[in-house]
Amino acid sequence: MQIVSVELGARSYPIYIGPGLLTESNLLQKHLVSQQVLIVSSEPIANYYLATLQKSFSQYQCDVVLLPDGEQYKSLETLNKIFDALLTHRHRRNTTLVALGGGVVCDMTGFAAACYQRGVGFIQIPTTLLAQVDASIGGKTAVNHPLAKNMIGAFHQPRAVIIDTDTLNSLPEREYRAGIAEIIKAALIRDAAFFTWLEEHLAELLQKNPQALTHAIARACAIKAEIVAADETEITGVRALLNLGHTFGHALEQTLGYGTWLHGEAVAAGMILAADLSQRLGWLEPADFIRIKTLIQRSGLPTQLPVGVQCDKILNIMAVDKKNISEQLRLVLLRKVGKGELTDTASISQVRQVLADYIK
Amino acid sequence: MQIVSVELGARSYPIYIGPGLLTESNLLQKHLVSQQVLIVSSEPIANYYLATLQKSFSQYQCDVVLLPDGEQYKSLETLNKIFDALLTHRHRRNTTLVALGGGVVCDMTGFAAACYQRGVGFIQIPTTLLAQVDASIGGKTAVNHPLAKNMIGAFHQPRAVIIDTDTLNSLPEREYRAGIAEIIKAALIRDAAFFTWLEEHLAELLQKNPQALTHAIARACAIKAEIVAADETEITGVRALLNLGHTFGHALEQTLGYGTWLHGEAVAAGMILAADLSQRLGWLEPADFIRIKTLIQRSGLPTQLPVGVQCDKILNIMAVDKKNISEQLRLVLLRKVGKGELTDTASISQVRQVLADYIK
Repeated sequence: MQIVSVELGARSYPIYIGPGLLTESNLLQKHLVSQQVLIVSSEPIANYYLATLQKSFSQYQCDVVLLPDGEQYKSLETLNKIFDALLTHRHRRNTTLVALGGGVVCDMTGFAAACYQRGVGFIQIPTTLLAQVDASIGGKTAVNHPLAKNMIGAFHQPRAVIIDTDTLNSLPEREYRAGIAEIIKAALIRDAAFFTWLEEHLAELLQKNPQALTHAIARACAIKAEIVAADETEITGVRALLNLGHTFGHALEQTLGYGTWLHGEAVAAGMILAADLSQRLGWLEPADFIRIKTLIQRSGLPTQLPVGVQCDKILNIMAVDKKNISEQLRLVLLRKVGKGELTDTASISQVRQVLADYIK
Repeated sequence: MQIVSVELGARSYPIYIGPGLLTESNLLQKHLVSQQVLIVSSEPIANYYLATLQKSFSQYQCDVVLLPDGEQYKSLETLNKIFDALLTHRHRRNTTLVALGGGVVCDMTGFAAACYQRGVGFIQIPTTLLAQVDASIGGKTAVNHPLAKNMIGAFHQPRAVIIDTDTLNSLPEREYRAGIAEIIKAALIRDAAFFTWLEEHLAELLQKNPQALTHAIARACAIKAEIVAADETEITGVRALLNLGHTFGHALEQTLGYGTWLHGEAVAAGMILAADLSQRLGWLEPADFIRIKTLIQRSGLPTQLPVGVQCDKILNIMAVDKKNISEQLRLVLLRKVGKGELTDTASISQVRQVLADYIK
């Protein structure tokens, strides 16, 4: 087991990474503060792991709520199901919510914990690679609004994150590869050596070699933890680095309709767009752009935009992105491999041009 | 104009109190950080004051959303109307929400500000006496859940609170008197001299004498501000003092159905119950109990429970109150006039007895 610590003063918490952690009752129990627990999960994941998890809470008042799975259910309406369960079973302020599932379950559980009685504790047990390296670190919780993704939420840190790498064995291959996108992103914005490691160990990673997997998850978590610690609530702008590929990616997801592309797939395509734009601005060496594109391609992730998407529609959505504090488009671009930078250097027409070149 | 400062470190903010403040553009403008403003109000209040307020923002992108008024609309569903407006008009992270209205509008605007893009700024312009002395201080924001009041919310401090005492002229008499209940509460938990002042100046206060009104509001705000500063997120328990009469009051409101009794009326009856229970426990002198009951009665507030309410129903609701961290009932009672105390001394049967004695 590896432990990555997210350093946030009084809100610091550990991330435990390793195989078989779901059965480690003591890991879970030491982060509870009362006899009440509400497990929030979704149908397919609950079938696999709920019974195992419940064993750890046999001495507790342990209630369960299952949410419909999928980005389209990440709404205020679904959130209300968690509040219904909490109130029906009379959970008090010292209760603990436990999220067992992917990013949607983790984000909604975190947001419900942030709001219930104005804030109760929660533990994340992410079961997708994407959620393990992304949603579980940094305390960003949210639901979607029909007009834009993740627009309604809170910063609320978990008490602990438990990453059982065994849970990835039940993850569909396509989702697994989508998770690789966020690992590549972590390397791109902050750690050139880790990027090289990924180039060298991608095959093992794609085969879910336990050692490679644990290293990659721990390294991606540590990079994200370091950035979050430097800018917990996105005030200094450091944290915005984590959005490499995301401004494009979110707009793509929304244009295509949530669920057509997986989040990681949209981010992969978004990283290619951001890297290409960086290259066109003279920031990134053409050879490095090729390295990035190659690694993304080898991971089985998209390097083109889908046929028929509309440039203007994407640009329009990008204009309401949270990072834009003025009318100017603000994007994370790459100075080089391992060095991301938040900038408004790229003009709207340059952004439009790079988009157009990737639409067949 | 009087200014009460709420001291919360980086989240400190001023409360401006006085007549005619709605026309003081500079007071409002100095708390904005961008060109965007969203005014959130409700139908009757907007008819009186919206045009005046909008004048201060003629140089800004100023959008407006009107919510249905009433406790029954304080829901996640209504909250969504604020998000709709923010996203439709493309409000960014540096936008400012301005609440113009009573407690329902102030609470929902604050919660929407807490959640929109995970937190934007807001200014409160409370137009009811209750909201002026209560909802506007302390950053408690929330919506109701069908099973309990204020269960979904956040701690989110406003940038400023502007209390224009002139707005009380349009307030219905019954609501005005309900606001007096929270002023009496402030005196009871913390300030015996202010309680005596209220006994002496109640007639002037009921006539809305501007001087008496400004003093009473400022004093009640200062008491609440002091308590909130000592315990911003209800960790130490000091802040729970503000709930004198509220555990009974919330249960009463819910039993009767939101809207049957005004919040302040339920709190008034709740304070009588709490004071009587304090007297029965030997904490409060019988003479002081009479003083409290008399002042509440002179204010035109209820001193009995409505015919037909059921003891068990009230007790049942009290059991899920946020202050109860164990199964034991936890209440704010009075050691004497000016000294409230959070306690679980009263047994369930004592609580049941005092309730029974007030049901005819």
